[in-house]
Amino acid sequence: MQLVADNLHVINPVVALALDQYDPGPIQDLVKKCEAAGAQAIDINSGPLTRAPERKMAFLVETVQEVSRLPLLLDTSNAIAMKAGLEAAKNSQNPPIINGFSLEPKKLGMILPLAKEYQSPIIGYLLTPNSQVPVDEADLISVALELYEKLQAAGLTDDQLIIDPVVAPVIWENGVRHNQSVLSLIRNLPDILGFPVTTIAGISNLTTGNIPMEKKQLLEEAFLPVLAGAGLSMALVNVFHTRTLQIARACDALIQPGIFSWATL
Amino acid sequence: MQLVADNLHVINPVVALALDQYDPGPIQDLVKKCEAAGAQAIDINSGPLTRAPERKMAFLVETVQEVSRLPLLLDTSNAIAMKAGLEAAKNSQNPPIINGFSLEPKKLGMILPLAKEYQSPIIGYLLTPNSQVPVDEADLISVALELYEKLQAAGLTDDQLIIDPVVAPVIWENGVRHNQSVLSLIRNLPDILGFPVTTIAGISNLTTGNIPMEKKQLLEEAFLPVLAGAGLSMALVNVFHTRTLQIARACDALIQPGIFSWATL
Repeated sequence: MQLVADNLHVINPVVALALDQYDPGPIQDLVKKCEAAGAQAIDINSGPLTRAPERKMAFLVETVQEVSRLPLLLDTSNAIAMKAGLEAAKNSQNPPIINGFSLEPKKLGMILPLAKEYQSPIIGYLLTPNSQVPVDEADLISVALELYEKLQAAGLTDDQLIIDPVVAPVIWENGVRHNQSVLSLIRNLPDILGFPVTTIAGISNLTTGNIPMEKKQLLEEAFLPVLAGAGLSMALVNVFHTRTLQIARACDALIQPGIFSWATL
Repeated sequence: MQLVADNLHVINPVVALALDQYDPGPIQDLVKKCEAAGAQAIDINSGPLTRAPERKMAFLVETVQEVSRLPLLLDTSNAIAMKAGLEAAKNSQNPPIINGFSLEPKKLGMILPLAKEYQSPIIGYLLTPNSQVPVDEADLISVALELYEKLQAAGLTDDQLIIDPVVAPVIWENGVRHNQSVLSLIRNLPDILGFPVTTIAGISNLTTGNIPMEKKQLLEEAFLPVLAGAGLSMALVNVFHTRTLQIARACDALIQPGIFSWATL
């Protein structure tokens, strides 16, 4: 399971200020800390970037790539920013992952074609066209099949697709039921689509809301390996949660092929 | 996921002495502590009971049932002891689970028929006829199919079968590779056998051997939810490992149908 840091988020005031002032220092410090903590990829969550989207996303990508060779996820709903980010990373070793598209018409029309243009992997969210979360597995499956059709129609290959079934907060009325469907879907997706589908899930979403910190920690520690056991490929996590990272490394030691080594724990 | 205490084991000197002296007190204390710690079933691991197998297993079953209504697993390779235990528990609400049989000829001939006679669920171990652990999933599947054939030939119903794919110690040369096959098998077994197969796994086995205690704890905390995520029905655990039990409860809160409640954490 590949661990993607969710820490480089414009919601973080340090990141927001640095971005506003085009000051690479604080962002590069954060990225180095993420890498030291065990991040295996970095999600650049720029938000919608209503002002100067091209310059800002290019700045973010270049700033991160100056200090890190980790794969990047470009996380914005702004197609102009996305294209600028892909352009800025064009010469890097790994094409960044587009995060992401859904059945929402604007995403299909503006974001999905960028995956074809830049040969990038792209994350497809299992959301309805009006961005609702389906509760039952049957509905998740039907959205997954539709996304896959759109991907094929856009001329992309199977290995470009990464499915995010969208973990719901446990405090939502149907959150737990939805997450059960998510687990079952992750287990069954390779059978449903007929190839070993890459999957990703955002762990922090689970404990969004007003929940005591130690309960958040416990739920996260339990849920990350549950997802790993279901077959999840990539997890978007706060890499500064030390115990969660330890648990994730233990999962890898237990699940990844290769000789078991205490050194990895 | 149902949590089965592995604590009532004749390898524990307190249990061994109490059994030797037919002294119910220490055993009942242990069972009460297991139940208080969160056990949802008790595995009575009597060992082979070479002397007085009938009296001893009957004593164990009656001793436990005097203080607990938890379901029991009778864990012995001695068919005479097994029958005595089943007989002793004949009038209890849940028939005990027979733990267990395999393709070993003695088990097929002596233990499996007891499941028919007492209408008991029975655990089938995915071991070769000479009690070896298959490493690859294909071999595990072929053993599972053979066990299922034997179960049908013995006149048992699908819901009597509980599959134990046998977790291997990580320090075994092929332990990690085997456990990966185990995970994949647990995910796929319902498809392979065509019904929602109940599964069980012994967690303590994972960290058998000379491993630092904090590494054992970390591996256990990670592996239990990994198994839950793969779809495991029952876990045999040391219920005195407090954090493991907390994690297991968090898994249940996340995986079991029903409204999420902080009270269960």
